[in-house]
Amino acid sequence: MATFRNDYSEGAHPQILDALVRTNAEATCGYGRDAYCVRAAQAVRARFACPQADVHFMVGGTATNQALIAAALRPWEAVIAAATGHINVHESGAIETCGHKVLSAAVPDGKLTPDAVRTLVESHLDGDDGHMVVPRMVYVSDSTELGTIYTKAELTALHETCRALGLYLYLDGARMAQALAAEGNDLAPEDFAQLCDAFYIGGTKNGLLFGEALVIANDALKPYYRNIMKQHGAMLAKGRLLGVQFLAYFENDLWLALGRHAVEQAQTLADGLKKKGFKFYVNSPTNQIFPILTDVQYKTAQERFGCEFTAKIDETHTAARFVTSWATAPEAVQEALAAL
Amino acid sequence: MATFRNDYSEGAHPQILDALVRTNAEATCGYGRDAYCVRAAQAVRARFACPQADVHFMVGGTATNQALIAAALRPWEAVIAAATGHINVHESGAIETCGHKVLSAAVPDGKLTPDAVRTLVESHLDGDDGHMVVPRMVYVSDSTELGTIYTKAELTALHETCRALGLYLYLDGARMAQALAAEGNDLAPEDFAQLCDAFYIGGTKNGLLFGEALVIANDALKPYYRNIMKQHGAMLAKGRLLGVQFLAYFENDLWLALGRHAVEQAQTLADGLKKKGFKFYVNSPTNQIFPILTDVQYKTAQERFGCEFTAKIDETHTAARFVTSWATAPEAVQEALAAL
Amino acid sequence: MATFRNDYSEGAHPQILDALVRTNAEATCGYGRDAYCVRAAQAVRARFACPQADVHFMVGGTATNQALIAAALRPWEAVIAAATGHINVHESGAIETCGHKVLSAAVPDGKLTPDAVRTLVESHLDGDDGHMVVPRMVYVSDSTELGTIYTKAELTALHETCRALGLYLYLDGARMAQALAAEGNDLAPEDFAQLCDAFYIGGTKNGLLFGEALVIANDALKPYYRNIMKQHGAMLAKGRLLGVQFLAYFENDLWLALGRHAVEQAQTLADGLKKKGFKFYVNSPTNQIFPILTDVQYKTAQERFGCEFTAKIDETHTAARFVTSWATAPEAVQEALAAL
Amino acid sequence: MATFRNDYSEGAHPQILDALVRTNAEATCGYGRDAYCVRAAQAVRARFACPQADVHFMVGGTATNQALIAAALRPWEAVIAAATGHINVHESGAIETCGHKVLSAAVPDGKLTPDAVRTLVESHLDGDDGHMVVPRMVYVSDSTELGTIYTKAELTALHETCRALGLYLYLDGARMAQALAAEGNDLAPEDFAQLCDAFYIGGTKNGLLFGEALVIANDALKPYYRNIMKQHGAMLAKGRLLGVQFLAYFENDLWLALGRHAVEQAQTLADGLKKKGFKFYVNSPTNQIFPILTDVQYKTAQERFGCEFTAKIDETHTAARFVTSWATAPEAVQEALAAL
Repeated sequence: MATFRNDYSEGAHPQILDALVRTNAEATCGYGRDAYCVRAAQAVRARFACPQADVHFMVGGTATNQALIAAALRPWEAVIAAATGHINVHESGAIETCGHKVLSAAVPDGKLTPDAVRTLVESHLDGDDGHMVVPRMVYVSDSTELGTIYTKAELTALHETCRALGLYLYLDGARMAQALAAEGNDLAPEDFAQLCDAFYIGGTKNGLLFGEALVIANDALKPYYRNIMKQHGAMLAKGRLLGVQFLAYFENDLWLALGRHAVEQAQTLADGLKKKGFKFYVNSPTNQIFPILTDVQYKTAQERFGCEFTAKIDETHTAARFVTSWATAPEAVQEALAAL
Repeated sequence: MATFRNDYSEGAHPQILDALVRTNAEATCGYGRDAYCVRAAQAVRARFACPQADVHFMVGGTATNQALIAAALRPWEAVIAAATGHINVHESGAIETCGHKVLSAAVPDGKLTPDAVRTLVESHLDGDDGHMVVPRMVYVSDSTELGTIYTKAELTALHETCRALGLYLYLDGARMAQALAAEGNDLAPEDFAQLCDAFYIGGTKNGLLFGEALVIANDALKPYYRNIMKQHGAMLAKGRLLGVQFLAYFENDLWLALGRHAVEQAQTLADGLKKKGFKFYVNSPTNQIFPILTDVQYKTAQERFGCEFTAKIDETHTAARFVTSWATAPEAVQEALAAL
Repeated sequence: MATFRNDYSEGAHPQILDALVRTNAEATCGYGRDAYCVRAAQAVRARFACPQADVHFMVGGTATNQALIAAALRPWEAVIAAATGHINVHESGAIETCGHKVLSAAVPDGKLTPDAVRTLVESHLDGDDGHMVVPRMVYVSDSTELGTIYTKAELTALHETCRALGLYLYLDGARMAQALAAEGNDLAPEDFAQLCDAFYIGGTKNGLLFGEALVIANDALKPYYRNIMKQHGAMLAKGRLLGVQFLAYFENDLWLALGRHAVEQAQTLADGLKKKGFKFYVNSPTNQIFPILTDVQYKTAQERFGCEFTAKIDETHTAARFVTSWATAPEAVQEALAAL
Repeated sequence: MATFRNDYSEGAHPQILDALVRTNAEATCGYGRDAYCVRAAQAVRARFACPQADVHFMVGGTATNQALIAAALRPWEAVIAAATGHINVHESGAIETCGHKVLSAAVPDGKLTPDAVRTLVESHLDGDDGHMVVPRMVYVSDSTELGTIYTKAELTALHETCRALGLYLYLDGARMAQALAAEGNDLAPEDFAQLCDAFYIGGTKNGLLFGEALVIANDALKPYYRNIMKQHGAMLAKGRLLGVQFLAYFENDLWLALGRHAVEQAQTLADGLKKKGFKFYVNSPTNQIFPILTDVQYKTAQERFGCEFTAKIDETHTAARFVTSWATAPEAVQEALAAL
């Protein structure tokens, strides 16, 4: 049965799974020190044009955000995020449990702006009086939690704002492949290490069993990262599982092909819904779309396709989230279009 | 090449891997709410005779210890552990980062005793003056970090001490199957929920790709555990990977068979070494053994078999750790015996 | 020279200071276990009609908020506050450093409403999915950071909302005496323990050298509070200094007299400024007033009277904060009126 | 009635109190930005020969230790202390609540040694594997919790060990004046900033109402310390109370005179007890002495003089702690000698 609940409903893409099966019997050392992880890190550095970067393979996104932010910030420092940002809403306080305030900005379409960043920083300058937290990092996700993307100009502007204000820029790429496949995207993999101090390339939501590749470009954030990983229970014993998967992921740019497939399905669905007259909560060019349904339609769709609640629009309408993935069959999209 | 470095050098046991491959294409909901996790939790409750317990599937041991302890303790409370305990040494401060002191006791063979517990508790009673942390939990591992095991009488005595002193008893079963397979063991799976407030059944070190099953027997520790999991980045998106693996793990007691195999290989190695005249750092009946080698022997063995340093015994001798697993071939044991 | 910078510019009111001098040579036990603290706690319980409450004397407000909130919340729980709330802005992340998210609501006049509370709670209900923090406490201040006050009806409505939603209600009374002295106030000291789970009675901003009296009415929040105090470095060695001061503070309701004096000076100033045509940023009936000045006037007043910046109103106007205290001379008010 | 319970039983020395009374009516700015604090900081820098140091005035010792350590350490770093160290035992987990492990060493007489430090550091080196905390600071107290003192050679050796191993050296001087007055001491105030990265000069236990002066000599530990103070609720609103007291404290070296008086009383008591045949638990030359009493004697002394329990020596003997202070009258010493 077709599901549009999320992009991590199935196991792994066959090429990923094959790589795991093929290497299963080999004995390697643990904790990401094996040859697969070394080669996968090299593949990341090559593909993202950052030969000097540190690469760490993590099991999931929340753990990645938590460990990187805990490693980067001093106790009195805060991270700025869009109000809809994953770290601000859906990580059950993972950042606060490390002692840091998330300063959130209500911004349109889930995209942080230089102005929003500057306003928050300025309102937290108090000489050296010490009464307020000190903003020190900006967190963005691309694609965002609302399926929108940053253009190269927008990310560059944030980069420059961060440089001017002494902030780290960290990008959550849980759905990076989907962002890169979107219409309107002009960012390339090679741009991220130029514009960000650290970022991660999502795997879990794009065909891996699990896994995210964290890239630390800024030397200041590199030392002792493995200690922070371990301290947060985020160092996988059989670390080579991540190396093996990511090697397959980057082979012939499989990751981009999977992202492209997901986006095409979502946009086909969106186009079909638009033709049927549906409006959208936000105009998102990636694999998450947010059509506005009548409450009756929403209830039916929710039961049949697993789409999730996003917002109540008015007394009789609801914005729903439909998510496609590398595993979404074109037939499923047609099935949904027929049903709505 | 034979390796005795650890028990997580290979991927998964074939039956585990097959289960993952077989179910790979299915779509399920995420975060451990799928039918596989529900069934696997039921299998745990049945096998461990704790129909009322909560079961959560976790990716690794450190995250399990961290989340359970963070969920159980209030800010002023501490956990008691053997000085060699995993949480005291090898988790890079995972417990302290949640705000809790680990009160450690230097005990022989890595096994905590009621006396050691009582002494620590009594030295921290200060009326209600509030100047010291309040011991509130006892952490033990079975088998221990030194390969030793608790008898039923010993664990029962700890249980009674904990009850008398108002302490939770938590058991780290990263190598529980290996403990249950050891000579001298008289604990049964059915005992743990009777004697402990919470415990986990290790999978990573016994043939799973990854995974530990946390069992919470005490109602007081159940509420909001999922929030703590998420807060620590420990909620796997494709949670069903854990359910699928644990279902296969408990089928026909595969877990016990794997533990037995590991223990047999280690004890064959130990017996052979004893016959050759080697002494041991500690007398351990499980899959970790600690022969005392000359420094020259140690260096050779370390390079060839990946065994690890445990302690310097005197100016010319070193205690090494050899670990076997479900994947250790009997030939590897003979190869090691021949080489030493 | 007259100053309207804040209400803690001078030392202690003479009666407070005399009590300290008079008892200086006495030897007592430490850490708040002395007879002065015992009697002062009794005075608090009597004046606030809460014979069963626990009373702890703290040195300052931030430490009081931090310790109480750290004692009350579990790791996954959050506290709701007005966006202008002291814990949300001016405590340099004191709540987050204990691991808790502050969920803030943009509310008018710095006063939290049942609707704002309910909206935040509802948006954080996610079944037991565990992806979001769980709101568990409401923090209000009376008088607020904007000098406004809660009526008995308003505080009762918050109380009822909290009861209905399973939230603790905690009131920061750094300026409680000033609130009770305000026009429009209909709360009495006897109300607070009925309506709040915990609250504190401010001393620092009303004539003590330092000191706040925390009252814990809800039994659930009482255990081990002294441990939390100590853990946060908030247990004063010579605790009797707090007991001695608070005994004098409550003698013949000195505290209310001091609050009344402060409010009268501020309101005289406000009335005078209104007559001169000044508008106000917020209509506040206590000892903090917020006139809107031209930028030129603000600069002069800032230098001469130490008033602080509150908000930029438009390109040429600024809202300033003028604060009066128990020590403000009526002549100082006239001096300010003459100067503006 | 004579008490030997502790050295913070009375209020302030008359000269300290007079200074507070004299300046009580003055209006100053808050939070330690006033002229008294500025001048007192200058007095500290002059007396301790550290013109470049940052000086912060804190209310109490636990808060000072907590804030300095929280400011200095990164999340994966640990502090080394004697097992008897205040931060290890009597701060209710104040360091752990900031996320840091205290690595304790069982050392004689409460004095840390270079060997003990080196052993702990070496056992925590694990390449960059990341499985253990990283020792980064050494905490010592002078005089120690057992009344013993460090010689200049001993502190210099610790200093050199710390430099060699990349550790900060932090000295808790809660009873520094008493250490400097002890027989055998050859440290001078001018030495501390040369040998330590940070240290504090105790006031609470030597005649102030409250207060410790933290000196940060190492530039790396200076930034944003005020934010950490505020974050831990340790920034006193009427900060000038600390400046006023410390100015009086350093005037004509009153602090040293008070420390000398305390030590003389304790040593007179110790000499008298020795003449009577009493043995001692530890040989301490400062204002804390630890005679071994019969249990009957201990019980009587405890009731009459408030001395505290230190250790059970055998079935019929107890080591008790007698503490003298600036306020101890010579007659009290004679009274105790007569009674024992």
